[in-house]
Amino acid sequence: MATEAQVITCKAAVAWEANKPLAIEDVLVAPPQAGEVRIKILFTALCHTDAYTWSGKDPEGLFPCILGHEAAGIVESVGEGVTEVQPGDHVIPCYQAECRECKFCKSGKTNLCGKVRAATGVGIMMNDRKSRFSINGKPIYHFMGTSTFSQYTVVHDVSVAKIDPKAPLEKVCLLGCGVATGLGAVWNTAKVEAGSIVAIFGLGTVGLAVAEGAKTAGASRIIGIDIDSKKFDVAKNFGVTEFVNPKDYEKPIQQVLVDLTDGGVDYSFECIGNVSVMRAALECCHKGWGTSVIVGVAASGQEISTRPFQLVTGRVWKGTAFGGFKSRSQVPWLVDKYMKKEIKVDEYITHNLTLGEINKGFDFMHEGSCLRCVLDTQV
Amino acid sequence: MATEAQVITCKAAVAWEANKPLAIEDVLVAPPQAGEVRIKILFTALCHTDAYTWSGKDPEGLFPCILGHEAAGIVESVGEGVTEVQPGDHVIPCYQAECRECKFCKSGKTNLCGKVRAATGVGIMMNDRKSRFSINGKPIYHFMGTSTFSQYTVVHDVSVAKIDPKAPLEKVCLLGCGVATGLGAVWNTAKVEAGSIVAIFGLGTVGLAVAEGAKTAGASRIIGIDIDSKKFDVAKNFGVTEFVNPKDYEKPIQQVLVDLTDGGVDYSFECIGNVSVMRAALECCHKGWGTSVIVGVAASGQEISTRPFQLVTGRVWKGTAFGGFKSRSQVPWLVDKYMKKEIKVDEYITHNLTLGEINKGFDFMHEGSCLRCVLDTQV
Ligand SMILES: NC(=O)c1ccc[n+]([C@@H]2O[C@H](COP(=O)([O-])OP(=O)(O)OC[C@H]3O[C@@H](n4cnc5c(N)ncnc54)[C@H](O)[C@@H]3O)[C@@H](O)[C@H]2O)c1
Ligand SMILES: NC(=O)c1ccc[n+]([C@@H]2O[C@H](COP(=O)([O-])OP(=O)(O)OC[C@H]3O[C@@H](n4cnc5c(N)ncnc54)[C@H](O)[C@@H]3O)[C@@H](O)[C@H]2O)c1
Ligand SMILES: [Zn+2]
Ligand SMILES: [Zn+2]
Ligand SMILES: [Zn+2]
Ligand SMILES: [Zn+2]
Repeated sequence: MATEAQVITCKAAVAWEANKPLAIEDVLVAPPQAGEVRIKILFTALCHTDAYTWSGKDPEGLFPCILGHEAAGIVESVGEGVTEVQPGDHVIPCYQAECRECKFCKSGKTNLCGKVRAATGVGIMMNDRKSRFSINGKPIYHFMGTSTFSQYTVVHDVSVAKIDPKAPLEKVCLLGCGVATGLGAVWNTAKVEAGSIVAIFGLGTVGLAVAEGAKTAGASRIIGIDIDSKKFDVAKNFGVTEFVNPKDYEKPIQQVLVDLTDGGVDYSFECIGNVSVMRAALECCHKGWGTSVIVGVAASGQEISTRPFQLVTGRVWKGTAFGGFKSRSQVPWLVDKYMKKEIKVDEYITHNLTLGEINKGFDFMHEGSCLRCVLDTQV
Repeated sequence: MATEAQVITCKAAVAWEANKPLAIEDVLVAPPQAGEVRIKILFTALCHTDAYTWSGKDPEGLFPCILGHEAAGIVESVGEGVTEVQPGDHVIPCYQAECRECKFCKSGKTNLCGKVRAATGVGIMMNDRKSRFSINGKPIYHFMGTSTFSQYTVVHDVSVAKIDPKAPLEKVCLLGCGVATGLGAVWNTAKVEAGSIVAIFGLGTVGLAVAEGAKTAGASRIIGIDIDSKKFDVAKNFGVTEFVNPKDYEKPIQQVLVDLTDGGVDYSFECIGNVSVMRAALECCHKGWGTSVIVGVAASGQEISTRPFQLVTGRVWKGTAFGGFKSRSQVPWLVDKYMKKEIKVDEYITHNLTLGEINKGFDFMHEGSCLRCVLDTQV
């Protein structure tokens, strides 16, 4: 390849400062070092975590940076020692790495690989603790180990899932975050059984993926809760069987659900990031066994609370990151499930834009009708 | 039997009002009605729940009442339709019923039977929604469906565990609450596996039973945390391998434990009833899989809190009531384990008194050297 071992100059959307519109810039992308992979990103979607860090509310956010973590592309070149992927492979970059060697990976109990976190958490690469992105010699931080709002990015090899080359990248990019998270929250974290009653708080992409996961798990009732009733029509297609808008009730929403279900739900999922809703999601669970899973990401510093009696009487409080999926092993499996039409992906895409229109994409995100907005990075 | 179908007059320790010394009174105990069992209580221990309700801090406490819920005795007579026990059977009355028919019992997921709770929660019997205790015609409330601070008590048949008649009642009475709770928290609720690192906050009877449970489960390290260093010597005999007194550190105790264990413990148990310790117990758990079980009972109105990130990164927060044991099925099994010397019981008994000395027993409870104080009710 002509570009291999060369610095590539390409377009990227750079967040120079918190809360300022992203700027499309010519960015220099250094070649991958040992254990690294340079990927040509073809499509990237926008997710709330990008918006959160961009807003400046994330105390760990570093600027300037290149955001983005829900994407798909093709390997351009690989650094020394990289064996599992090679140039031309179709891949999904994964913010949750999987090294198969660390304490976490070996435990068999979690997907939270610890191998590269010390670097990705501070916007750099492990090998030399530097960034591969620069503009006029000034380094631009990486984000979540992925930085997909760029035509080219460099990631650690433990963060690359190789997928079926026949899969449409403009769709399966969604399996890099939101859709996978919702499905996994049900299948891996809660392990919902057939016949269960499920409550889902928040019917965005993540909540709808929870609904789909619950439906395939055989849940008997899937109750969707959202303050935006416009969400209900779409949600039916994802398996939601009943709708509750908290604004229609004077009682606390947990009480509404307990009354609707003769004592509470078997499983609940918070897919918003609101700590009061997290409490309601726990407290609407059935005494004795109800399990609540926190999926939404709350703003920094906020706390959840409840009376300990809720737990002493048998409710369980959990959370999930990337739905508990082991990224390199399981994202390809999710892509295969999509190819076999066992899971939806296309239906979550409500908007398509180009990388140059990215700021418009963030505006869409805050409109009720938007689930996922996918950007074509190459036009 | 001479007493069958007769009102029995016997001694009981009556709590006339919150916080006033218990008074030994002649109390009338009516015969058991349909589905009820009258038990001659031979031995009863004191537990913190008795002290808590007695103190007046329990908003659901009703006075006058007969407290007590950790006891053993012999069936004196049974009401209509009672088939599983008969006069002469050795039994442990159980505050947690097991009817085998209700939604809870049938779920297979919990021990929190709902059959008689509506009655036992308000100090009466299901059949006629009245008390079986009276003094000069004035009814005295039941407590926790057991009221064992009396020479005779009446309980629902679903709350009676029939045990091996060879078991020493002055010992196995402890299996009616504290010891069973600690063992079950480990075996049923947390399901601790061999090789696990366990932290136990509070080394009273419940915490020591957790230690014993963890030891039999094969835990590799059992870290006991108590603000009273005098607890450590005894705790060694129950399996605790390391001791931490939070007073010896300036850092928060969760940080001390994370540092001691290279990232956190696999399982933690709060056996105190202190909501700040409950938070520490969660936060000292290992990222990715650490599970914290709340065993202690906090004062009414108090709340637990933490950052949701603790759960999103894989920690699990649970609680346990009576250690998850199904009372009628499993208390006899615990008694058998004791008879086979597979679990300790005698070692928790630090004081022996008579029913008439019960107030002294409550004084002992607040001394560091006291684990369980057992009262002989018949002298
Ligand atoms: N744990 C993880 O690994 C992970 C991964 C991806 C996303 N997330 C988080 O999941 C959350 C959901 O993501 P999304 O993309 O679906 O978001 P979204 O904004 O599209 O959906 C949120 C939904 O919640 C509804 N809502 C807001 N406040 C509400 C309230 N008080 N009661 C009921 N409904 C309410 C909104 O109307 C909206 O429909 C975000 O917090 C995101 O950061 C977590
Ligand atoms: N969930 C249930 O079903 C159940 C059943 C029985 C008892 N309990 C509860 O379990 C708890 C323990 O019962 P117990 O009989 O063992 O009590 P206990 O009073 O004998 O033991 C408590 C221990 O905690 C220690 N302690 C107090 N504050 C502390 C702190 N801040 N940090 C560390 N250690 C501290 C004390 O020194 C003592 O050793 C009580 O709250 C009781 O009500 C619950
Ligand atoms: Zn995301
Ligand atoms: Zn790893
Ligand atoms: Zn007790
Ligand atoms: Zn029952």
